[in-house]
Amino acid sequence: MPLEELAAELSAGALVTDRDVITTYSKDWALFSHVGRAAALVRAASVEDVQATLRFATAHRIPVVPQGARTGLSGAANAVDGCLLLTVARMNRILEVNTVEQTCTVQPGVINQDLKEALKQHGLAYPPDPGSVAISSIGGNVATNAGGLCCVKYGVTRDYVRNLTVVLADGQITRVGRPTQKGVAGLELSQLFIGSEGTLGVIVEITLELIPALPDPITAIALFPEAADAASTVCDFMATGARPSMLEYLDGPSMDMINDYGDFGLPTGMGAMLLVQSNGDGSLEAATQEMGAFSRVADACNAAEVVFSEDPADSELLVAARRAVGPAGEKFANAHGGGELIDDVCIPRARMREFFTRLDELRAAYPQVIISNAGHAGDGNMHPCVFFDERDETTTALAQEAFDAIMALGLELGGTITGEHGVGYLKKEWLARELDPVTRAMHLKIKDALDPLGILNPGKMLGAL
Amino acid sequence: MPLEELAAELSAGALVTDRDVITTYSKDWALFSHVGRAAALVRAASVEDVQATLRFATAHRIPVVPQGARTGLSGAANAVDGCLLLTVARMNRILEVNTVEQTCTVQPGVINQDLKEALKQHGLAYPPDPGSVAISSIGGNVATNAGGLCCVKYGVTRDYVRNLTVVLADGQITRVGRPTQKGVAGLELSQLFIGSEGTLGVIVEITLELIPALPDPITAIALFPEAADAASTVCDFMATGARPSMLEYLDGPSMDMINDYGDFGLPTGMGAMLLVQSNGDGSLEAATQEMGAFSRVADACNAAEVVFSEDPADSELLVAARRAVGPAGEKFANAHGGGELIDDVCIPRARMREFFTRLDELRAAYPQVIISNAGHAGDGNMHPCVFFDERDETTTALAQEAFDAIMALGLELGGTITGEHGVGYLKKEWLARELDPVTRAMHLKIKDALDPLGILNPGKMLGAL
Repeated sequence: MPLEELAAELSAGALVTDRDVITTYSKDWALFSHVGRAAALVRAASVEDVQATLRFATAHRIPVVPQGARTGLSGAANAVDGCLLLTVARMNRILEVNTVEQTCTVQPGVINQDLKEALKQHGLAYPPDPGSVAISSIGGNVATNAGGLCCVKYGVTRDYVRNLTVVLADGQITRVGRPTQKGVAGLELSQLFIGSEGTLGVIVEITLELIPALPDPITAIALFPEAADAASTVCDFMATGARPSMLEYLDGPSMDMINDYGDFGLPTGMGAMLLVQSNGDGSLEAATQEMGAFSRVADACNAAEVVFSEDPADSELLVAARRAVGPAGEKFANAHGGGELIDDVCIPRARMREFFTRLDELRAAYPQVIISNAGHAGDGNMHPCVFFDERDETTTALAQEAFDAIMALGLELGGTITGEHGVGYLKKEWLARELDPVTRAMHLKIKDALDPLGILNPGKMLGAL
Repeated sequence: MPLEELAAELSAGALVTDRDVITTYSKDWALFSHVGRAAALVRAASVEDVQATLRFATAHRIPVVPQGARTGLSGAANAVDGCLLLTVARMNRILEVNTVEQTCTVQPGVINQDLKEALKQHGLAYPPDPGSVAISSIGGNVATNAGGLCCVKYGVTRDYVRNLTVVLADGQITRVGRPTQKGVAGLELSQLFIGSEGTLGVIVEITLELIPALPDPITAIALFPEAADAASTVCDFMATGARPSMLEYLDGPSMDMINDYGDFGLPTGMGAMLLVQSNGDGSLEAATQEMGAFSRVADACNAAEVVFSEDPADSELLVAARRAVGPAGEKFANAHGGGELIDDVCIPRARMREFFTRLDELRAAYPQVIISNAGHAGDGNMHPCVFFDERDETTTALAQEAFDAIMALGLELGGTITGEHGVGYLKKEWLARELDPVTRAMHLKIKDALDPLGILNPGKMLGAL
């Protein structure tokens, strides 16, 4: 591979061949995902760098793995053997905030939280808030269609993309999507790139639609001796026509881990907890009414207690506790043999009660591992975690079995194998199980149409179809 | 063409060869769009009828023109020579309303307004409200990504589609989209079919996401001696972070036509009017505040008068007046030589002021025609109408020139040739002008991947790329 040819086309210092640096950039946060040996790393400083890299890759038929902040959980950003890693993390400028159009235009490397902060002074908001909000980039969020806690009311990344500038496999550049708030001129190709995990092109510029700053919410927690009753509460509450701005679930084991991780003061000895917020779209009265409805439903569903707070400090602490489930799980894993597999099934709300029961059956079937469960209950998006001793091969294999059984359960209950974490390496065989043969064939035809040499992130999302 | 073969595969009576009926079904509402001579009409009563028709068409390489309620304005549903017209209008059942999931599942022939009515008893709403709301079908709305008056706050059809069942060109059937509220398993292929105007497949079932019933709005009108000041009002108002639930524009000529059509009592002698609604998401206080902000902005932008009403009857009358612009234009056209071309450009809000000025220049350049303008000002989606004497060839040619000049202007101002009416026959050459060569090529590759024989609605949206 004549890397000197590529170096000559790139910004100074963009091509990295230092093996240690390449190793650092060779993986994201996924476990159990193959990490290949990359040939080199391109730290793109410009759109031209991205184009030059893809022209070179096409000319020499070299695989390219596009990368954002590498905070993904599915291995989509992991190196494949002989590839060029292409990170756009340095392209991190906010190019425009347009208050008349209520949009902003950003480079892909902008960190989600940085964008949120920058929008505050304009009274505008970009809602999507994945768990990685403080460290993941907008480009990666778009490439994976990131979700978060706000989705039950405010939708996912896809819902905020007006248009994208993308570089295709051969280095050609184009803008897809609408120039304006409405637009139906041709096929909506931007939506094809959103969530495509680097398999169709590299996103180099993004225009997002914004909404007015979100009003402060009222927060409530409801505690349940039985987890299944939390599921019933979610269903009955949503069936009142509710629009909570957050509706999160923690089971007892998750609450214990969080308490062990930090001074969050969550109640102990409970089966489950719901954390719900309503902002009433700015109306305290509407928020209070909605929380009243929640309280009545929770009581009717055997809640042990329902507690409210309008104090933003209380709200923040509770949300911080919910967000701590990630690092708390890490701490728990480290104390229990190191292994942790985070799942991400999404099921219809009405099937959550059954999901909880069946998860208990899995716990009984796999006593060698520990399974906790937390998630975005308002969406039916569940993140069961399987903890295991990774030093033990048998236990590790059982953990993977349990992880797979959770996905099988998700499919059985009419859901999906991934609500927001993506497919990547981790779930590519499961994607083939979820999609029917006709849709699988469509995926491959479209991939072939846009990346005929198959150089973009090969062997990942579409690798088992 | 062995139609008897096809008849044997279809529901009784589904195949129609009566020439008069075929002629009736051979066109939509577009003007200046070629109408071909269809070979036959299939009035599908079931998914199986659709599949059988497409299998037959593939076997014999016969073009198929999928049709909904044929209320489109771009000729997308017009017959092409030798085609099978395939209407799904008879497949018009609401299959499920799921209050826990806040979704509904419908057949494509369900009329938009009928769905809205059916959802009321569940306290749920499906917002998209194209001008054709009372007569257009959900399938057609999805196939064209229909918009309407609500879009400034509530988005377009695309924003409400959870998943679609589609029959492909070869008769194979599949479901695309997510089973659940969140889902990132594979490429989001449903979004490719939305707005594809029958060029990629036939939509036979649709699951829509719903929201709680919309609260009653406060309505205001602002009157402006100068149209350009209405444009400035829209920009300055939106820049306050406003979320009006409706923000419509009528110019003086449009207001005159509406008054001439019915007893709506719109003021006369004005340059323009804005019709704005705010529902404050259910909070009267929030709505009142937002309308206060609108009033202050309009006053600062030289409004002659701003009038409010909380009375639903007043609101309905004003919205009815706005909705009457279509039939009012028809009446006006009939009295002025019969010709009317309705345009549909969408531009950034900030360019609307310039658009109005440039439209005046077009009026001066084409004195043989009459140009009025109305539209969804909150979106920048403008519907200028060109009225002309269709009995006169020269005038007709000039009218088409003026129509084209409006699209050129839309593109020049950073907008699109179609905000919501679609491409069809009418604008296919203009689509080629709007899209860059790379995006044009992507369209053709995707079309070829999904419809390799090119039998689905040939010569329409993608016909000039």
